Amino acid sequence: MKNKAITSRDDDFAKWYTDVVKAAKLATYSNVKGCIVFEPNGYAIWEKMQSILDQKFKETGHQNVYMPLLIPENLMKKEGELIDGFAPEVAWVTIGGQKKLEEKMCIRPTSETLFSDYYSSVVKSYRDLPLKYNQWCNVLRWEKETRPFLRSREFLWQEGHTVHETREEAEQETKMMLEIYRDFYENYLAIPVITGKKTEKEKFAGAEYTLTVEALMYNGISLQSATSHYFGQKFSKAYDITFLNRHNEQEYAYQTSWGTTTRMIGALIMVHSDDKGLVLPPKIAPRQVAIVPIGNDAEVLTKTNEVYDKLKTEGISCFVMDDDKSPGFKFAEAEVNGIPIRIEIGKRDLADDKITFVRRDTGEKMIEKANIDITTYITKLLDDIQNNLFYRAYERMQSLTYECHDLKEIEDIMANRPGFVKAMWCGNDKCEMKLKEINGTKARCILENDKMIDDKCVVCGKKAKHLVVWGIQY
Amino acid sequence: MKNKAITSRDDDFAKWYTDVVKAAKLATYSNVKGCIVFEPNGYAIWEKMQSILDQKFKETGHQNVYMPLLIPENLMKKEGELIDGFAPEVAWVTIGGQKKLEEKMCIRPTSETLFSDYYSSVVKSYRDLPLKYNQWCNVLRWEKETRPFLRSREFLWQEGHTVHETREEAEQETKMMLEIYRDFYENYLAIPVITGKKTEKEKFAGAEYTLTVEALMYNGISLQSATSHYFGQKFSKAYDITFLNRHNEQEYAYQTSWGTTTRMIGALIMVHSDDKGLVLPPKIAPRQVAIVPIGNDAEVLTKTNEVYDKLKTEGISCFVMDDDKSPGFKFAEAEVNGIPIRIEIGKRDLADDKITFVRRDTGEKMIEKANIDITTYITKLLDDIQNNLFYRAYERMQSLTYECHDLKEIEDIMANRPGFVKAMWCGNDKCEMKLKEINGTKARCILENDKMIDDKCVVCGKKAKHLVVWGIQY
Repeated sequence: MKNKAITSRDDDFAKWYTDVVKAAKLATYSNVKGCIVFEPNGYAIWEKMQSILDQKFKETGHQNVYMPLLIPENLMKKEGELIDGFAPEVAWVTIGGQKKLEEKMCIRPTSETLFSDYYSSVVKSYRDLPLKYNQWCNVLRWEKETRPFLRSREFLWQEGHTVHETREEAEQETKMMLEIYRDFYENYLAIPVITGKKTEKEKFAGAEYTLTVEALMYNGISLQSATSHYFGQKFSKAYDITFLNRHNEQEYAYQTSWGTTTRMIGALIMVHSDDKGLVLPPKIAPRQVAIVPIGNDAEVLTKTNEVYDKLKTEGISCFVMDDDKSPGFKFAEAEVNGIPIRIEIGKRDLADDKITFVRRDTGEKMIEKANIDITTYITKLLDDIQNNLFYRAYERMQSLTYECHDLKEIEDIMANRPGFVKAMWCGNDKCEMKLKEINGTKARCILENDKMIDDKCVVCGKKAKHLVVWGIQY
Repeated sequence: MKNKAITSRDDDFAKWYTDVVKAAKLATYSNVKGCIVFEPNGYAIWEKMQSILDQKFKETGHQNVYMPLLIPENLMKKEGELIDGFAPEVAWVTIGGQKKLEEKMCIRPTSETLFSDYYSSVVKSYRDLPLKYNQWCNVLRWEKETRPFLRSREFLWQEGHTVHETREEAEQETKMMLEIYRDFYENYLAIPVITGKKTEKEKFAGAEYTLTVEALMYNGISLQSATSHYFGQKFSKAYDITFLNRHNEQEYAYQTSWGTTTRMIGALIMVHSDDKGLVLPPKIAPRQVAIVPIGNDAEVLTKTNEVYDKLKTEGISCFVMDDDKSPGFKFAEAEVNGIPIRIEIGKRDLADDKITFVRRDTGEKMIEKANIDITTYITKLLDDIQNNLFYRAYERMQSLTYECHDLKEIEDIMANRPGFVKAMWCGNDKCEMKLKEINGTKARCILENDKMIDDKCVVCGKKAKHLVVWGIQY
């Protein structure tokens, strides 16, 4: 059933996206320009993401901390590349307690500065290392064009910041966190991704290099989905983080940072959802099963309670839609909100010893015996839905991934049916800029262990150095 | 064993407090004036508080949302009392994206304005009500004098904001949330409290009335610990939150708000902790049991693992102190960090079929059979510690609670051994101000169902209206 409040995604993808955000009550625009209100349905998805990632961070030896929101200008400016990168998009506090401040302070766009300043005061010896801290917080970047979840002035995220004794250990951490993100995207969000290294132009301001997780949306546009940065000693030199090493010498520490944001909610929408509204993978859905009793008959309510109790006991997140709205209204509501499974329990069905199950991902309706082993059935169905969503997205990504050998080919693809374009690159900035002229095509990442598909740069024809995935980005 | 890094709390309470914060690695001052860094040990306590309260909020029908950090000046000014109350202590953003803003924006000191603005756009009918939302976030108030956890420019908190169809329902919510806070303080933090209504002078700016939870610290100083406000229609009139009621008429909605903050960590320190460092009630301790193997002998390590596995399986939060530091160092570390129980496992003890348990609250050492039913024993001991901490604090509060009938009495008490002073009040501002001259004594709350202890105001001698608890506050 088409939802009338939702534009078709094939007609107008951007309008479809905001319609889904609104219809599923994930967020609304606020009267604060460029900022959204996270409504309960949207925030619950973020809470679920947090709980899973937070556990993975803790299992790998990280601890949570909390750094201040405000960064004094001088502290912010200590690392030159970072301030150059963020200066255009920070907000400055200039008045506090009715007085003009002697030194203005910016609202954190990211917290390398504060973590580094803290680390410089607590790290003394190799015995203090590693320190592997993370924080969940809000950050602010003064974006001009905004879109709910994908790009807004304020967003929520986590930022991990670690300090290590050796380059090897820090690089290991950078890789490990990338892998945690990849696993989270593929095995929880059911979103297939590619991973690799950013080019110099696209890396994080202040990093030695940036590893990235990149996903492809339904419309073929790329989304930078999570990043993990290796800093080497850049920040430790700027903020004077030294330690006495095992050879009794003072050495600058090695650092990393890594983060992902509420943008992941946008990715869920743009990869899985459809014209009926939100579609959520079971592992990330705050509510996995909607039970709809049809009518008020005693046997219907008894069965409803029985099903609810059994699922609840098994740790399956379910709820009963028992208000006075019509069954049709409830079906549509469960659908638009992306509840993975709907169970319909009606008097006539029960008389025939039947109950009905509906999958949100395919819309398929299954009629089963009323006394079916419900927890086994639902557990398996949730698994099937999770897997189906992943493979559907994986096949789409495959069908939108191209190998190109000349510019004309890339132009055609990006104009008609964009996606991930694999093409060789010489490593020169100018060639990278040339590709940007094609609808803003940018390097998503350098694939490091793939076979080279050609020996010439797709732009200049000179000797190629890297196999790069290119795409148009959000 | 006295901790050398910690001043005695009877010698210099303020210094003792900051020494404990530092020695237990809860927080450090940052280079951002008036703001602290929450270190892992401090933040873990906050996470534990969040997880318990959040569940209680959800069980009582609340949902989490997230509102913007920034509030445009005009939106902030719509409710007159609120802006008058907060104007002296807000921070203003005047520059964003390298441009002077047309309208300055303040960093939220509290979010009534944003919630009300949101509610005005989504509430249409009584069918939409109640809306019971909460958010966990950071807020900023430009305090002049700061102290870790108790008062800092930025702090973390939760703020619940609800909208109701009737006065009765909103007042019921106000009371229910006060009761949730009271229960949390007494049954989780092990801190006895008094509750009641704030005077007009002390209530929240913009509230019809404020209910409060007040606790007494070790040194007899009072701490406002959580508040629950009934707004009536004040904000709904200022922000135009109207709904079609059951009689088909437009009506202004009834609102509440309620909150508590990271200040609770300060309360834990000032109520329970001692000269050896932090003391935590087991229900709020992120780590409940420290297991210290003494030496590396096989039987010691086997027993250590056995104890650890058994406790872990039972859901008791325990950890093994197995680095290469000396046992004495580890004992001191477990002590300063407030781990409720320490288990010592040594070769000689095991040869005698014994293991040793040490309670952090009393320092008592208990030697038990090595094959004791460890989970039952520890579970009971954690309960005992939880109860003992509550009763110790309760007895102290009782011993520092006074009934006074004249001003001289109050002066003596507040100068020598301050605490909660019960005294009658006529309801006049001037008498309230007169008491403030006594070391800043303020009304903590009006006790509503208590017996009147006198018929005259303790200040002016005129007819008394209220029994009030007075105290010197943090």
